[in-house]
Amino acid sequence: MHNSTNDNKSTSKKKVVAVVGGGLVGALNACYFAKRGFQVEVFESREDIRQAKIVKGRSINLALSHRGRQALKQVGMEDTIVSKGIPMHSRMIHSLNGTQSPIPYGKKGQVILLLQSAETYPNTNLNFAHKLLDWSTETGAMTFVRAEGAKEEIQADLIVGCDGAFSAIRKQFLRQSRFNYSQTYIPHGYLELTMPPINGEFAMKPNYLHIWPRNTFMMIALPNLDKTFTCTLFMPFEEFEKVTTGDQVITFFQKYFPDAIPLIGAEALKRDYFRLPAQAMVSVKCSPYHLGDKCVLMGDAAHAVVPFYGQGMNAGFEDCLVFNEIMDQLNEDFSAVLPEYTRVRVPDDHAIADLAMYNYVEMRAHVNSKLFLFRKYVDNFLHIIMPRTIIPLYTMVTFTRTRYHKAVKRWHWQEKVRKDIVHVHFTLFKVSVAGCSYLLVRYPPNMLQALKSPF
Amino acid sequence: MHNSTNDNKSTSKKKVVAVVGGGLVGALNACYFAKRGFQVEVFESREDIRQAKIVKGRSINLALSHRGRQALKQVGMEDTIVSKGIPMHSRMIHSLNGTQSPIPYGKKGQVILLLQSAETYPNTNLNFAHKLLDWSTETGAMTFVRAEGAKEEIQADLIVGCDGAFSAIRKQFLRQSRFNYSQTYIPHGYLELTMPPINGEFAMKPNYLHIWPRNTFMMIALPNLDKTFTCTLFMPFEEFEKVTTGDQVITFFQKYFPDAIPLIGAEALKRDYFRLPAQAMVSVKCSPYHLGDKCVLMGDAAHAVVPFYGQGMNAGFEDCLVFNEIMDQLNEDFSAVLPEYTRVRVPDDHAIADLAMYNYVEMRAHVNSKLFLFRKYVDNFLHIIMPRTIIPLYTMVTFTRTRYHKAVKRWHWQEKVRKDIVHVHFTLFKVSVAGCSYLLVRYPPNMLQALKSPF
Repeated sequence: MHNSTNDNKSTSKKKVVAVVGGGLVGALNACYFAKRGFQVEVFESREDIRQAKIVKGRSINLALSHRGRQALKQVGMEDTIVSKGIPMHSRMIHSLNGTQSPIPYGKKGQVILLLQSAETYPNTNLNFAHKLLDWSTETGAMTFVRAEGAKEEIQADLIVGCDGAFSAIRKQFLRQSRFNYSQTYIPHGYLELTMPPINGEFAMKPNYLHIWPRNTFMMIALPNLDKTFTCTLFMPFEEFEKVTTGDQVITFFQKYFPDAIPLIGAEALKRDYFRLPAQAMVSVKCSPYHLGDKCVLMGDAAHAVVPFYGQGMNAGFEDCLVFNEIMDQLNEDFSAVLPEYTRVRVPDDHAIADLAMYNYVEMRAHVNSKLFLFRKYVDNFLHIIMPRTIIPLYTMVTFTRTRYHKAVKRWHWQEKVRKDIVHVHFTLFKVSVAGCSYLLVRYPPNMLQALKSPF
Repeated sequence: MHNSTNDNKSTSKKKVVAVVGGGLVGALNACYFAKRGFQVEVFESREDIRQAKIVKGRSINLALSHRGRQALKQVGMEDTIVSKGIPMHSRMIHSLNGTQSPIPYGKKGQVILLLQSAETYPNTNLNFAHKLLDWSTETGAMTFVRAEGAKEEIQADLIVGCDGAFSAIRKQFLRQSRFNYSQTYIPHGYLELTMPPINGEFAMKPNYLHIWPRNTFMMIALPNLDKTFTCTLFMPFEEFEKVTTGDQVITFFQKYFPDAIPLIGAEALKRDYFRLPAQAMVSVKCSPYHLGDKCVLMGDAAHAVVPFYGQGMNAGFEDCLVFNEIMDQLNEDFSAVLPEYTRVRVPDDHAIADLAMYNYVEMRAHVNSKLFLFRKYVDNFLHIIMPRTIIPLYTMVTFTRTRYHKAVKRWHWQEKVRKDIVHVHFTLFKVSVAGCSYLLVRYPPNMLQALKSPF
């Protein structure tokens, strides 16, 4: 038994839940399990991340949307977290849905809030600088190494692996037979740059997602609470490899992002561009998510996604919520809850991983194509005339808790409907009125009745 | 440097190639590298497999076809190996191509022949009972543990990982960034049973692939040189789990394979069925196949396939042949050969892994469907009237060295042609002559001219 837990808290009857990983999903999970009355031990290999300096350049900004908010709400954290975010009204999102918008966050701020919330439970311990050395899938016995080299043992009733895309917990799963696993790196890397405030104010308009689309690569910028912007440059690794000196960076920016040079600052740009190598992006899928009644994977450890649907954090948060719902249904019986969690959650997490990858491919291939834009236009038009039948995929994913795999299924059905409608029912007129051109679309009056949604 | 190599052979100028894994692909690779004059060190974790008893129940019989034969031919081993096989004229294969047939082999016999051939080269050492402990991707320094616990170090210029589906060499690849990897287990397992000779003769007709198709599961039997048959039962794991006692085995066989009970023997069946648990089947794909200029993966270590296209061993043998061809083209410069091998070979190995998986799905879903059989019929008909335009996929894969991914591409084109033809050009007549029914197919005279193969 972990020493500090015995000192001042009664753990004689409480089951011990070891949460491995003190990031976003680990911290939220700690709140969930603590709220249920388990003895919760959070293990994080890094030093107390609340005291640590921000590691710049390695965390893509995160957008919190409906699923994530619902998950936070259950442990009373929605308002606390939302008040620390910057609402974003990006043009792209406006055109899909005018009423709600994702909210971007720096990763660190949220983690701190969630860890602080977890710590308010008397039955929770945060153990920093604990690196997992080994653990038994049979008994739940775990061995950690502390920063100074001392070993520490703990016996867990349940191990929750929330230790990210390169999960140490998942390594044990890979040694089991019949564990399905895939990791796919995309050809793009990313690099983060900071745009400082000008005279104490944001250098560009806040509350917007700034995008510099440049065919095979792009830069985006998102506002932070400290009035800086984090600029993220996405580009194929082979392009990154061509830029090797400070002067080449300036030449490259002059060609593609001239307006960003004075805002970031030429000297900072030359320096920060090389602070870290371009970071890789990986999509991880696996199944099952559990081992016996002892261990379960959540968040990026179970399903790292590429950051092109803005759902990575939300999917991880929803994992906690779904697990919690199943714990209610099956009376906290781990031997029943864990297989049920795998059964329910795997198809949804695989769906969002596939969607994020699909978006990456679509963005590169079609973002400038007229057909793609016309399709988006038709989608929105159909949504307006049939709001209950045709719901844009983005809306289902971002603003509802429709199960991811059901959203994808419905989307495929809608795509079929859209094709049928476009090919069969529409008549298009180009009309000019007072010097402006309009596209007039006539559709048969019985079309709406003929379409019955199976959903 | 490995001790035994220094004792009696001059290695001062020869580059050292460490082949990890003394199975089929490792042994063939040893021949290839030895023939080129490298100092070859083969490391196998098991004891000398030539002296070991046959491990029954864990090796699906292997079929040698064109690609594998071509790879053996290059090192003068084709005739030796082929003479030890049993030609197979299965009905299924006859119906696709009457002239050539795959030849099944027990795994062990072939490995012995290949290891013996490798050992005839003075610049080759076979090191059994050497388990890989660690190796450096930077320097090629390798550490092995011997059976008695002693450690052994070796410095390799090139490490060739041929250590199978659960490759130890591949683990280092998984630690690198941007290594794409997937392992997918299918829901079926397999179990092997032996059918002994009767009065010194085969219990069933040899030279045939015996198949007992039973919808979601099936049994096949292949002849061995010692007049036994190896019967392999393929079945979903959940079905295997239902059979837990000897009596249940007999009941199960009485229901599905009654004719096999007296041939295997009821007592042997009860006993052997439980000798090993049902074995899992995995499909492994990864990319790249190389690390710098130091290490390359071949065979199952690079691409384990499910055994439903009979190409596993052939693909592994062709790996050696393709690598050898690239060594010729690029003058044995590892820093150029290794990336080129990845570039050329990855799409082909991925294609055969996908085809094997596709065949598994098709077999289960369609083998009893009339549409499927009709499609096969149309394929064969088209091949007869247009032998150069329409080549059955199975023929391209099994009897040619057409690159796997090109075979798949051509097949997709042919599928399209077949659909077009079936929908547009055919007129079918049912004719009765002298009590027999015939299907008469009329096709337009200009059809053949209209179809120009892009291949």
